[in-house]
Amino acid sequence: QGIIDAALTILRDEGLNKVTMRRIAAALDTGAASLYVYVRDTEDLHAQILDALLGSVAASLPVGGTWSARLAAALTRYMRTLFDYPDIARLTLFNWPTGPNYLAFVDLLLALLVEGGIPDRDAAWAVDLLLQFATATATEQGARKASSRAAEELSALATAITRADVATYPQIARLGGELLSGSGATRFAWGLDVLIAGILGTRRPPTVQE
Amino acid sequence: QGIIDAALTILRDEGLNKVTMRRIAAALDTGAASLYVYVRDTEDLHAQILDALLGSVAASLPVGGTWSARLAAALTRYMRTLFDYPDIARLTLFNWPTGPNYLAFVDLLLALLVEGGIPDRDAAWAVDLLLQFATATATEQGARKASSRAAEELSALATAITRADVATYPQIARLGGELLSGSGATRFAWGLDVLIAGILGTRRPPTVQE
Repeated sequence: QGIIDAALTILRDEGLNKVTMRRIAAALDTGAASLYVYVRDTEDLHAQILDALLGSVAASLPVGGTWSARLAAALTRYMRTLFDYPDIARLTLFNWPTGPNYLAFVDLLLALLVEGGIPDRDAAWAVDLLLQFATATATEQGARKASSRAAEELSALATAITRADVATYPQIARLGGELLSGSGATRFAWGLDVLIAGILGTRRPPTVQE
Repeated sequence: QGIIDAALTILRDEGLNKVTMRRIAAALDTGAASLYVYVRDTEDLHAQILDALLGSVAASLPVGGTWSARLAAALTRYMRTLFDYPDIARLTLFNWPTGPNYLAFVDLLLALLVEGGIPDRDAAWAVDLLLQFATATATEQGARKASSRAAEELSALATAITRADVATYPQIARLGGELLSGSGATRFAWGLDVLIAGILGTRRPPTVQE
């Protein structure tokens, strides 16, 4: 836990590429060799950081309310936690975590979907879709926050949208303002509503040979 | 166009970090300085590559069928194109493209949603959700294809799922096989069905002060 705490501090203050075994050993005033008992390598360290963050997500979830409200709350909390650590969010999109807190979080989401009457085979796929949405949103919004290049591009996009030629891009010209409207949080909440409604209403086709 | 063709060849054969102005100039047997008339910098080059790829997406879309079938076909074609260029897919997730083919693609998606009777303000947000799903899927599946580390992690996840302890992770233990079932293409098609059904059935709340 001391290792993870030190890693989180370095991550917050200096970014993910500074979170190395050597740097943590220095912060803990020990040799890197002594850490290898607990952590296999830098990638394993990053995986353990993610799992520690997910532990804090699970610990703060509401216990009452409907299954869909609890599902949305869990995914919102997950998204916000990753949003605070954009580098970890990015990793999570390209990696398949297997830590105990990650598995517990997946199990919780499955239990909520099943409680909502979603058939097992749909729930099994739905959990992926929901986690992908939350992870991608955290990554995207985190990138927007972290990089001045991203902010610049976003403003270039806003300009392109508001100046779109009505003959070439009739829909963009017509909808301009709506395309850019809404806060990240409002859009995320709407996206969750869409996904939950879609999951409730869409059964998987019967399995065929694939 | 010669620049973009040379860039696509280098991208396919050597990966994105080799797609630099200097490398392209060498491939075209010219000086890097002569390229700056057409391309501002390496990031601009990457943006132009994406836009060229999107041009090929739009050129190959079916013209008949229902709006939802055409919407799914457009997004599937987009996803597959990005899947063939995982580095560009990754960029697209963290950048906001503004090229003419990108804007035309967004306009097409909007027109299909409006044809489907989705109210304007929902269509405006829906287009983001659909593009995020397609881009994130291409990135994720592309990473799985490209990296042996990812393949290793995925197999670690499969092991974690099939060995999940029924007392600790009851849902994962119960659903094990279903969680891992289905090809990427089948899951993507189902995800699109879910999103389209959800978008059809979910109106945005009235705008409040945000």
